[in-house]
Amino acid sequence: MASLGDIGVGAAINILSAFAFFIAFAILRLQPFNDRVYFPKWYLKGIRGSPTHSGAFVSKFVNLDFRTYLRFLNWMPAALRMPELELIDHAGLDSAVYIRIYLLGLKIFVPLTVFAFSILVPVNWTGGTLEHIKDLTFSDIDKLSISNIASGSNRFWAHLVMAYAFSFWTCYVLYKEYKIIASMRLHFLASENRRPDQFTVVVRNVPPDPDESVSEHVEHFFCVNHPDHYLTHQVVYNANKLAKLVDKKKGWQNWLDYYQNKHARNPAKRPSTKTGFLGLWGKSVDAIDYCAAEIEKLCKEEVIERERVVSDVKAIMPVAFVSFKTRWGAAVCAQTQQSSNPTLWLTEWAPEPRDVYWANLSIPFVELTIRRLIMAVTLFFLTFFFMIPITFVQSLANLEGIEKVVPFLKVIIEMPVVKSFIQGFLPGIVLKIFLIFLPTILMTMSKIEGHTSLSALERTSAGKYYLFVLVNVFLGSIITGTAFQQLHKFIHQSATDIPVTIGESIPMKATFFITYIMVDGWAGVAAEILRLKPLIMFHIKNTFLVKTEYDRQQAMDPGSLEFASYEPRIQLYFLLGLVYSVVTPTLLPFIIVFFSLAYIVFRHQIINVYNQQYESGAAFWPDVHGRIITAMIISQLLLMGLMSAKGAAQSTPLLIVLPILTIWFHRFCKSRFEPAFVKFPLQDAMVKDTLEQATEPSLNLKGYLQDAYVHPVFKGGGFERPPAIDEEEINPLVPTKRTSRRSTPGHSRYGSEVGSEIDP
Amino acid sequence: MASLGDIGVGAAINILSAFAFFIAFAILRLQPFNDRVYFPKWYLKGIRGSPTHSGAFVSKFVNLDFRTYLRFLNWMPAALRMPELELIDHAGLDSAVYIRIYLLGLKIFVPLTVFAFSILVPVNWTGGTLEHIKDLTFSDIDKLSISNIASGSNRFWAHLVMAYAFSFWTCYVLYKEYKIIASMRLHFLASENRRPDQFTVVVRNVPPDPDESVSEHVEHFFCVNHPDHYLTHQVVYNANKLAKLVDKKKGWQNWLDYYQNKHARNPAKRPSTKTGFLGLWGKSVDAIDYCAAEIEKLCKEEVIERERVVSDVKAIMPVAFVSFKTRWGAAVCAQTQQSSNPTLWLTEWAPEPRDVYWANLSIPFVELTIRRLIMAVTLFFLTFFFMIPITFVQSLANLEGIEKVVPFLKVIIEMPVVKSFIQGFLPGIVLKIFLIFLPTILMTMSKIEGHTSLSALERTSAGKYYLFVLVNVFLGSIITGTAFQQLHKFIHQSATDIPVTIGESIPMKATFFITYIMVDGWAGVAAEILRLKPLIMFHIKNTFLVKTEYDRQQAMDPGSLEFASYEPRIQLYFLLGLVYSVVTPTLLPFIIVFFSLAYIVFRHQIINVYNQQYESGAAFWPDVHGRIITAMIISQLLLMGLMSAKGAAQSTPLLIVLPILTIWFHRFCKSRFEPAFVKFPLQDAMVKDTLEQATEPSLNLKGYLQDAYVHPVFKGGGFERPPAIDEEEINPLVPTKRTSRRSTPGHSRYGSEVGSEIDP
Repeated sequence: MASLGDIGVGAAINILSAFAFFIAFAILRLQPFNDRVYFPKWYLKGIRGSPTHSGAFVSKFVNLDFRTYLRFLNWMPAALRMPELELIDHAGLDSAVYIRIYLLGLKIFVPLTVFAFSILVPVNWTGGTLEHIKDLTFSDIDKLSISNIASGSNRFWAHLVMAYAFSFWTCYVLYKEYKIIASMRLHFLASENRRPDQFTVVVRNVPPDPDESVSEHVEHFFCVNHPDHYLTHQVVYNANKLAKLVDKKKGWQNWLDYYQNKHARNPAKRPSTKTGFLGLWGKSVDAIDYCAAEIEKLCKEEVIERERVVSDVKAIMPVAFVSFKTRWGAAVCAQTQQSSNPTLWLTEWAPEPRDVYWANLSIPFVELTIRRLIMAVTLFFLTFFFMIPITFVQSLANLEGIEKVVPFLKVIIEMPVVKSFIQGFLPGIVLKIFLIFLPTILMTMSKIEGHTSLSALERTSAGKYYLFVLVNVFLGSIITGTAFQQLHKFIHQSATDIPVTIGESIPMKATFFITYIMVDGWAGVAAEILRLKPLIMFHIKNTFLVKTEYDRQQAMDPGSLEFASYEPRIQLYFLLGLVYSVVTPTLLPFIIVFFSLAYIVFRHQIINVYNQQYESGAAFWPDVHGRIITAMIISQLLLMGLMSAKGAAQSTPLLIVLPILTIWFHRFCKSRFEPAFVKFPLQDAMVKDTLEQATEPSLNLKGYLQDAYVHPVFKGGGFERPPAIDEEEINPLVPTKRTSRRSTPGHSRYGSEVGSEIDP
Repeated sequence: MASLGDIGVGAAINILSAFAFFIAFAILRLQPFNDRVYFPKWYLKGIRGSPTHSGAFVSKFVNLDFRTYLRFLNWMPAALRMPELELIDHAGLDSAVYIRIYLLGLKIFVPLTVFAFSILVPVNWTGGTLEHIKDLTFSDIDKLSISNIASGSNRFWAHLVMAYAFSFWTCYVLYKEYKIIASMRLHFLASENRRPDQFTVVVRNVPPDPDESVSEHVEHFFCVNHPDHYLTHQVVYNANKLAKLVDKKKGWQNWLDYYQNKHARNPAKRPSTKTGFLGLWGKSVDAIDYCAAEIEKLCKEEVIERERVVSDVKAIMPVAFVSFKTRWGAAVCAQTQQSSNPTLWLTEWAPEPRDVYWANLSIPFVELTIRRLIMAVTLFFLTFFFMIPITFVQSLANLEGIEKVVPFLKVIIEMPVVKSFIQGFLPGIVLKIFLIFLPTILMTMSKIEGHTSLSALERTSAGKYYLFVLVNVFLGSIITGTAFQQLHKFIHQSATDIPVTIGESIPMKATFFITYIMVDGWAGVAAEILRLKPLIMFHIKNTFLVKTEYDRQQAMDPGSLEFASYEPRIQLYFLLGLVYSVVTPTLLPFIIVFFSLAYIVFRHQIINVYNQQYESGAAFWPDVHGRIITAMIISQLLLMGLMSAKGAAQSTPLLIVLPILTIWFHRFCKSRFEPAFVKFPLQDAMVKDTLEQATEPSLNLKGYLQDAYVHPVFKGGGFERPPAIDEEEINPLVPTKRTSRRSTPGHSRYGSEVGSEIDP
């Protein structure tokens, strides 16, 4: 086991590497030509624009003012300075609430650390058990942990009382946070501008009617059943094939741009390509002509397909977006059951247009339940048996296997360096590749489950990922062996033995998790700010594809917060903190450093970088809350197991009360706050309606809503590009400079903070 | 273990005792003076009335036509003859669906029995394992059961396949039944006459307002938020104390009647009573004057209390019944969230006025969740630890204890006969008393949980009783020992071992359960039809209290189906049937006899006796369905355990699929049908509204709804008795005869069937 000194060295290394990331970030982001990578959000908002031609040519690319480098951590206070209301306005409620998860971590763990260090650490330190055991090697960390208390000692009362105190504190903070976020959500919804989804309900499983089209049927049904409120509706076309064609055309367009750029830079030689797969083999042709021809062909196909979709009855899906005259009418329709057959005329709030996942809208009810069953079974196998295919692939990916498939590489592979590399790294790489693709796999599973909005897809993927992390990272690290082996062990163990088995090994794994927090948490967060992948991608695209300002916007692509994979990882830290708060308090400061660092970095990122694809109004909070509750219950059960393993089984009746109270607290919170995230209260809808009628009595709502829910491929101009603006744009490396800073007063305060660092 | 012969003798005894009950019933019910005990429903419907004075005096009391006694089982076909639609019309949907549970049992178990006997019994019989084991005593029943198959034999494939077949058949029947009952419910709701609860929503947790009374606040809130639909509302007074006074006065009134009757029969002597407790000691006074004075006193108190309730602001609870102009408006309000704080303005469908449980209407939200937590913990302790207080009381209720408390009884107790009686029966009696009071205890717990309608109270009590039966009757009989000992054993066993432990002992307990089915099931059902307790109570009341026709109506009190204790007992038979269908098919015919007998008896009872207090429209079906699913899953898990105990562990992967599919089936049914039992579809509401507007355009709905939801103590005349009609009514034994038979054509067919047996 690692001693305190070892941990100190590890911490120093990780802190230094984090600093290295920060310095790299400081240098890179001050270079004007990286500006679009590190501040894309401001470009999208129109606050930073295209650069002007003033100044030396070099200074368009490289920042030569060395004073700015000295203040390389300046972005941290800057990130913290924007007040929350402005942040919500700037980045949306989803992002603002997302970073509150880190803040919640601080709120929970800072007092826990203070109490644990002032009460539990002295109690453990003076326990003096480990010193009396001769043949045991132990570290200082163990002396500070519960391991140092003699079996059956009265000192366990301290841990028991602290377990209660910590649970109550965590519940208190969770309750307050849930309350705040529920009111933030309601306030956000109430203060929002008019949005199409406020008036619209998505209706699924419209029953077929022999005499009427889907559109007529929908209109008649809602005219009859919501006579005072129905306004208009929009049927949904199955445009999946058309969307594919559009995507394909876009790909060819990119190639055409690339070849045109190449030709423009070297007019003497026309670029050529091959017609085969990926341009690797086949007949050699003139690239520009070939691409243009392909685009032409696709254009024709697209026109045909577009006509087919619009005219074909079968392309109309039994789904419609129904809009109402008032928010009240929409709220009523979304919350009530329409037909006596509860699988027909299913209504729910329409996601906002950007949030709709079009491909899933037409899945019928029975198919949905079957899909969910299959995905639940798949998830179970993926979580517990994922090692089986990995091991299989690893067994294939050995030297003999590779030599068989590609015999001509034998000479290279047999070289000692290469050989040892393959033998050493290949198994690890296979696993790593799987882990990289895991979020995508889980997202695909969620898509198969048939959720109809991107936000729901992200939420369910996050739930799946959390299960995976819990079983394979947390339990897998504590009980060595694959998840399948654990499962096998657990089902052959009694219900009381499982917490004991895990609880016993908990204190021994503290140093491992401290290292994990530093490597995965600290370094991960520091790497996050560097945005290495988007940086490289941007420069590649900028070099080869960008011709117009629009292209550069596209290349910039800030991406959005990947809630589905980030949030479960945060939950791991909550779990570790709660489990170790009583057992090994030494771990807590590392958690606190993680949360503070992550809070600052992600606050910076959502202010400057990420551009959310949609706005769900913090609809994910019930999940976050539920998972922290799960972590609490796990920690309480494991403490119970540890206590009985340590000969303090008489504490079990007292400790069993904790999970019961926690579950009750969860149910209480659920009934108290969750409706705010699922339903829309009629009172609020009525207030907004009344206000709108008073301020805008002559509003043409029908016109406003007419085209709100049209499939993106039907929206005019979505795939038409504006022509090139001027020669400057062909320049691959684009210096940028804020031109319209201070243009919008709402953002001025923050804008000037950032600006002051770079302006000469 | 009992042999087939023993079982046969047991069956014969039980069949004979059942016949004895039926004969006793046949004799008793043909006596005219018992008519009101066995056919009260027809009196309540007004189809049977007071007797006329024709015929001999004796024949008013005793049926002398001996021919009628010969046809003593005639009521059975008569009970089956009423068609279901007429039954719903006559007894309500709740009762009609309740007896469908027995029918469902037949639908499930008759094909199961046929298949089990044609496939599994031959397979078991020729298994030939038991014969080869020398030192084992075994019975023929065991030879027919799975015990006769050698460990690890290939014959288990037959059981595996049958387990699949049985599960699929059960699911199929359940699905069809759920579908039928959902459509019956919808049809019932749609064809119902106008009822106040169709237009009314109960609003709980009205927030306090400093400037307005509750009534004004409710009116303003709904005028604003449901402007087009709000009609009127009725606040709820806390009249619990007043209700108590009214009850008390009723008790005194009964005593007054009793003494007046006594005096009338013996005018020479005025009856006297004592003022102390129960009239046992204290000053001797004239009984009639004393009772009259007490009633006078209570009348005055009542008037004061009545005025206080109406005028005191504090007596108005933050609850209101809000009525709407249309069913559509009520359906909308009941299904939507009103306020942004989801714990205020809670709306739900109002139960029908008879179904309201007034005392629980004012419990605030936070208190509700705490009450539910406490009751959940209490239920857990009651289920698993109920033997502890029982044992404690049993230890007190021994000879020494009794002698200490009542020393003057020492002489009697010390007599050998009494002594052995006390020692032998007292512990059993303590347990029996507890079991008799158990439904009341569970109902009290449900009341503490705060449900606001009688139907919900019954449903939740049934759930609690089911848990108790499952743990203490089913598991308790299989694994001997108290529930607490089982619990202790289970939590120290691995998850895979529990089904094995239980599964192993399953086949051994088959004979016990067969006896149980005969004694508890067959005899219990036969005893049900005799109505011994109501019979005695009626004659006591009729002798001492009855002066008027109204009094006799009161004394008749048919009661209603005790869903809360009957339904969980049926569930036990479902559980036994499903568990033993594969293991010991011999048990199945006994289950079938139970279900057929119970079906006929209860069909007779709901036609002739029970008068439901309320009508919930079969709202209990999702619970019934869910419990049968639970029984299926338990049977599948136990079969899995049994199989691995029998060395056929390789079948586990195949068997684990069954519970997964069953759970999925449950979820599917839940989403497919449950909304029909919880929500009211807008389409149906709109249809009824439109129809009503067309047929009764000038309906004064406000007047109709004005007093619908007034606390029963405020309803005029509820406690005022009509004066005595004529001297005939003083006669304690009242001969009755149908006078208005055939008066309502709807019931004529059945009425004449019953009548033909008694009429001379």
